[in-house]
Amino acid sequence: MRKVAIIGVGMTKFGALWDRDMTSLAVEAGVKAIRDAGIHQKDVEVLYGGTMSGGLFANQEHLASKISDYSGFKNIPSVRVEAACASGGVALRQAYLDIASGAHDIAIAGGVEKMTDLGNYSVTKILSTAADTDSEGIFGATFPGLYAMMARLHMHKYGTTEEQMAAVAVKNHKNALTNKYAQFHKQISIQDVLNSPYISDPIKLLDASPITDGAAAVVLVSEEKAKELCDTPVWIAGSGHATDSISLHDREDILTLKATVEAAKRAYLQAKITPKDIQVAEVHDCFTISELLALEDLGFVEKGQAGKFTEDGQTEFGGKIPINTSGGLKAKGHPVGASGIAQAIEAVKQLRGEAGNNTGAETALTHNVGGSGGTAVVHIFRR
Amino acid sequence: MRKVAIIGVGMTKFGALWDRDMTSLAVEAGVKAIRDAGIHQKDVEVLYGGTMSGGLFANQEHLASKISDYSGFKNIPSVRVEAACASGGVALRQAYLDIASGAHDIAIAGGVEKMTDLGNYSVTKILSTAADTDSEGIFGATFPGLYAMMARLHMHKYGTTEEQMAAVAVKNHKNALTNKYAQFHKQISIQDVLNSPYISDPIKLLDASPITDGAAAVVLVSEEKAKELCDTPVWIAGSGHATDSISLHDREDILTLKATVEAAKRAYLQAKITPKDIQVAEVHDCFTISELLALEDLGFVEKGQAGKFTEDGQTEFGGKIPINTSGGLKAKGHPVGASGIAQAIEAVKQLRGEAGNNTGAETALTHNVGGSGGTAVVHIFRR
Repeated sequence: MRKVAIIGVGMTKFGALWDRDMTSLAVEAGVKAIRDAGIHQKDVEVLYGGTMSGGLFANQEHLASKISDYSGFKNIPSVRVEAACASGGVALRQAYLDIASGAHDIAIAGGVEKMTDLGNYSVTKILSTAADTDSEGIFGATFPGLYAMMARLHMHKYGTTEEQMAAVAVKNHKNALTNKYAQFHKQISIQDVLNSPYISDPIKLLDASPITDGAAAVVLVSEEKAKELCDTPVWIAGSGHATDSISLHDREDILTLKATVEAAKRAYLQAKITPKDIQVAEVHDCFTISELLALEDLGFVEKGQAGKFTEDGQTEFGGKIPINTSGGLKAKGHPVGASGIAQAIEAVKQLRGEAGNNTGAETALTHNVGGSGGTAVVHIFRR
Repeated sequence: MRKVAIIGVGMTKFGALWDRDMTSLAVEAGVKAIRDAGIHQKDVEVLYGGTMSGGLFANQEHLASKISDYSGFKNIPSVRVEAACASGGVALRQAYLDIASGAHDIAIAGGVEKMTDLGNYSVTKILSTAADTDSEGIFGATFPGLYAMMARLHMHKYGTTEEQMAAVAVKNHKNALTNKYAQFHKQISIQDVLNSPYISDPIKLLDASPITDGAAAVVLVSEEKAKELCDTPVWIAGSGHATDSISLHDREDILTLKATVEAAKRAYLQAKITPKDIQVAEVHDCFTISELLALEDLGFVEKGQAGKFTEDGQTEFGGKIPINTSGGLKAKGHPVGASGIAQAIEAVKQLRGEAGNNTGAETALTHNVGGSGGTAVVHIFRR
């Protein structure tokens, strides 16, 4: 397996982009990534793109062909992958494996979702197709409800409070203030979160990531090409991908996302490091409880301690381990197929010293989850 | 890149399977492939699965997680890929690249589609999301219409007749008689095809592949594992994947599927052979005209000659190059995401000497198309 570097990143503004369609978002992100890498369309040898549901959200499947076509990449192999909200992370990993294998030297990995243009289906209903339709969806379960069960049990078992969960949202909104691509540029307070309406007790509106349109892309190259093309390559030091039971009822412990634990274990092993070596991380905060679970499952704190750790400011910019310096899914926005790639972009910017909340980190981690933990992808990046 | 072999194959009956759901079909095919390979669930290290539209056909995304879970493959990396009707071919190729790269030693590649259980959407409308919604779908174009334009031009330019197209359907129905998994076991005549109603002139009902439920899976392993586990490995000698304009209007020549030409060129180059060396092939006959175009684009005959070649019986079992000995998409059935894998199963059976219409071939080819040619995947297999 060869070394692989990211040498270009690009993303669209995240938000409710009613004047844009899915394809134009994907093309914009791709073109920006290519320009940032200093290469041309004709240099791109292979594309991996993550989208959760082109069919249900935007009435378009066969996405990799269409996006390659509209991007001017005609005739290259082009692969769409889908792993619900982890589609972007899986696209990144497949592009990484492709370059690492020697199959190609220059790949583009992207993600896109257009969630705000809808006909018959509601967004929450579409997102619920990432849960088990046969054992969860059939009873009307949607993701706010599934994560609410996890949150309630975490509160019961470890004393986690609604204020501690709110602290995740407050921090991520603050972080987003310096990210020009973020959906929200609005500081909120603990009281704002606590006063927002319950959408699924104990999860409130401001505990949840928003509905977002957007796209993100990165250019990955082999070591040889990285040395030829780039002065500031960011290396992928570890890549882990794991699945778990798609439904909550079939897990030993619904407060441990085994997919996260396994994916992280594989990534740490490959990078030959431990959680202590991570200096900044983008984790999957689709709800505030998700960020707390991620801190625990990634090994940054002991199980049950993430609420206190967050309340103490340890995950803030300037804290022990800054989490979601981009604003996270919560405030940057969560166009589901794009989120895994946007996380990688923040990691690259941190390691290049170009991030809005710049930590000067030399080692970064990204963590992308599908559904309630049926899939998790973890990547470790180094300067 | 390491050598890769297929050591196990399994598929469900293809047909209108109203008593089955998508997941159970996928699991059945996977279990059969694992048993055929003589391995156990716990031996499978990675899964690649192709499905065109879990969302629109079956209200379920996050398919790779769900199918891994229900198959007992918990915690393995599991990737769904989508390339419309070429989803199965792309899944096979990604599994091939994964094993070839050294990332894993034992992979399962599968495909599934459940097309006959529908709520709000019609199958033809869902399939049309594989065309360009913005430049084709918006005008009401569906696949019978798009392929009808290709057929009409082929007739006009090369003198191809409706009888010649009908000969494809007659041959494939005959071939399906020996395939117990085929949707149709019904011999038809040229006159039957000509008498069937026009669905999009000049394409008639019996020129079109049916709507089908089904799943198929294969087990791929590294050379070392193949030698350890199997006496009759079938080697993947070449793998090519290409895209083209998703829409017809943007092509130089709508009678040449450039994606097929490019994918085939790459596969032939890798296998170090020419079209003359192929002894049996499964090609993408979603409509009878598609098989004729494939024969030309794969290099088996000159452009424009496939109608005459077929009418002369050269593609029959016993002819110069037997095509779609399994019955093809036309008579075996076309559960779109599964078709690319089912083609590989026929190739493996031919090379093992286990096919219903056994050719004794030593080199076989499969050809899987997405949409009207926005994607094509070609694989070459050897004993």
